[in-house]
Amino acid sequence: MRNELTDRLGLEYPIIQAPMAGGVTTSELVAAVSNKGALGMIGAGYMSPSGLRDQIRDIKKRTSNLFGINLFVPSPFSSTQEDIQHAQELLKPFRTQLKLEEQEINIPDCEQEAETFAQLIDIVLEEKIGVCSFTFGLPSGEVIKRLKAHGVVLIGTAATVREAIEAERSGMDMVVVQGCEAGGHRGAFLPDAKESMIGLMSLIPQAVDSIEIPVIAAGGIMDGRALMAARCLGAKGVMMGTAFLTCSESGASSVHKKAVLEAREDEIVMTRAFSGKWARGVHNRFIEEMKHSQLDVPVFPVQNTLTKAIRSASSSQGNPDCMSLWSGQSPMLAKEQTAAQLIDSVTEQAQRILNW
Amino acid sequence: MRNELTDRLGLEYPIIQAPMAGGVTTSELVAAVSNKGALGMIGAGYMSPSGLRDQIRDIKKRTSNLFGINLFVPSPFSSTQEDIQHAQELLKPFRTQLKLEEQEINIPDCEQEAETFAQLIDIVLEEKIGVCSFTFGLPSGEVIKRLKAHGVVLIGTAATVREAIEAERSGMDMVVVQGCEAGGHRGAFLPDAKESMIGLMSLIPQAVDSIEIPVIAAGGIMDGRALMAARCLGAKGVMMGTAFLTCSESGASSVHKKAVLEAREDEIVMTRAFSGKWARGVHNRFIEEMKHSQLDVPVFPVQNTLTKAIRSASSSQGNPDCMSLWSGQSPMLAKEQTAAQLIDSVTEQAQRILNW
Repeated sequence: MRNELTDRLGLEYPIIQAPMAGGVTTSELVAAVSNKGALGMIGAGYMSPSGLRDQIRDIKKRTSNLFGINLFVPSPFSSTQEDIQHAQELLKPFRTQLKLEEQEINIPDCEQEAETFAQLIDIVLEEKIGVCSFTFGLPSGEVIKRLKAHGVVLIGTAATVREAIEAERSGMDMVVVQGCEAGGHRGAFLPDAKESMIGLMSLIPQAVDSIEIPVIAAGGIMDGRALMAARCLGAKGVMMGTAFLTCSESGASSVHKKAVLEAREDEIVMTRAFSGKWARGVHNRFIEEMKHSQLDVPVFPVQNTLTKAIRSASSSQGNPDCMSLWSGQSPMLAKEQTAAQLIDSVTEQAQRILNW
Repeated sequence: MRNELTDRLGLEYPIIQAPMAGGVTTSELVAAVSNKGALGMIGAGYMSPSGLRDQIRDIKKRTSNLFGINLFVPSPFSSTQEDIQHAQELLKPFRTQLKLEEQEINIPDCEQEAETFAQLIDIVLEEKIGVCSFTFGLPSGEVIKRLKAHGVVLIGTAATVREAIEAERSGMDMVVVQGCEAGGHRGAFLPDAKESMIGLMSLIPQAVDSIEIPVIAAGGIMDGRALMAARCLGAKGVMMGTAFLTCSESGASSVHKKAVLEAREDEIVMTRAFSGKWARGVHNRFIEEMKHSQLDVPVFPVQNTLTKAIRSASSSQGNPDCMSLWSGQSPMLAKEQTAAQLIDSVTEQAQRILNW
């Protein structure tokens, strides 16, 4: 199963564990994946610089293989005091139900975000991380140049062919094309792409025909059938999120894992209500009740900050009603297993198909 | 490339030409596809019983191979005089721009639709049609029994796993699973499935694991890469619509073909504005201007009737602005060619992948 992707990254299998943010990508998970010959990745999107440094050092104790880091690329945002007030009103009933006291909320600001991003980049370089991927945008030419000068392999994220072309132009070495099947946040960044929901059956071949750099497919990929399908369509490898989320080493809460394991394909929906950005997860009460107001909530990351205490309280109360239960469109294929078992079964099934 | 699907239908290739309604499936197209060893199909959704009979007889003169027919399964609908008045107001500016005179419109009624459907079924039997597929629902147990007693192979259409299970239970011999990539109308029929937009990478394997009858994949499939991808995922064959729409034998207008051939992946959008049912096509002015009112238009087939003259006038004026330019999500892979050339290139490319 080797190809230019596995060669460049020194992998045994063309499988990348998606860098799910918010605590899912524990050191145990990242190390288990990398130790098995696939690529483990830290979802550093919401991490502090010191938190990222600590986790990198922890993972280095667990594996000597390559692992990667994903960063959210900050972009300018703004929301008025009125928007925030309105959102807080909408969220009040959930706070009440969860018995949450009113809290002071630190609304994120753009400059702060940009500064944190710069610090995270410094850590990638200081810790000699070999692979860095980006979501929600592409870093500046200057950052790209600096990372490349240090030999870091750069991976962009694209939800459309147009974005894949943009990623290639910017200097990315590879690009993840995110199909509409994907769980969690849409990685789209160009204005027109924000609402593009393109299935992988269409997205992969059109992207492959339009760019030269390796395409990695993400979205709904859970087993060897999908790995081989993605390769038939021209992808050099796959990125798997939900499949790793229910693994024993993942840091997703047991409530989240259970919700995914029990969900059916038609219970996985899109919502903007949790974070201000469109994202895919298991339908629950919060999504339902915010259905008609989700278009009015503040933009990412403001809404994400506003709902944080609600999501945490729901989770710690073992109550799935107000959690963001991110999942791709193939929950019926999710299993409880170790990351090594998942990689074994995916690659064995792919090999059986190759031997047809 | 033979399997239980090709054996059952006596085909050389596991390829079915999608029964696109509205005049796309000319006798030339259906016969060319069937003569080439794939399955041609008449999109009889909007046809009159006599029109269908005439076309069947015409095709029989052009091929002795099997071809199929697709019917829309009628279901109860209603719209008030107010709804219709409101819709007519919304449509007025388009009529004015197209210099259309006010016309008497015959609003369809449920009983009439049911009667037409019964007559179309009679013709399927009288003309000894071997394959009949259904969209927008499943026929009654009585109709299914009657068709099966005459040896007609029945194919259901499902947009979710739940609908695929329902199709199997009803007695369908095969089921087309329609991914979110698909052009034209969503075939969904269960209330919860109406807004389910599941990509084929997720839909095919979950459906295959849930039912015993052969699964046929539809949506964004344009070439041998996608045919092989669908087969890796467990589908026994594929249904291709947009790929045949731009073929020389297709009855789609040259304006429609040109719009598809020139479109990019991110210009293909969903709209309810043309027919009252969600459908996918190339973005144009009508879709843009109806964007905010599309949720308020009457249900299918009422809105479809109301917009008919607008669509026709736009087409005959060679103006793409107000036509329903149905297309799947892979327009960048569409080509001008004959149906035989398309089938040759798809199967040759699939064979090259098989020989990896």
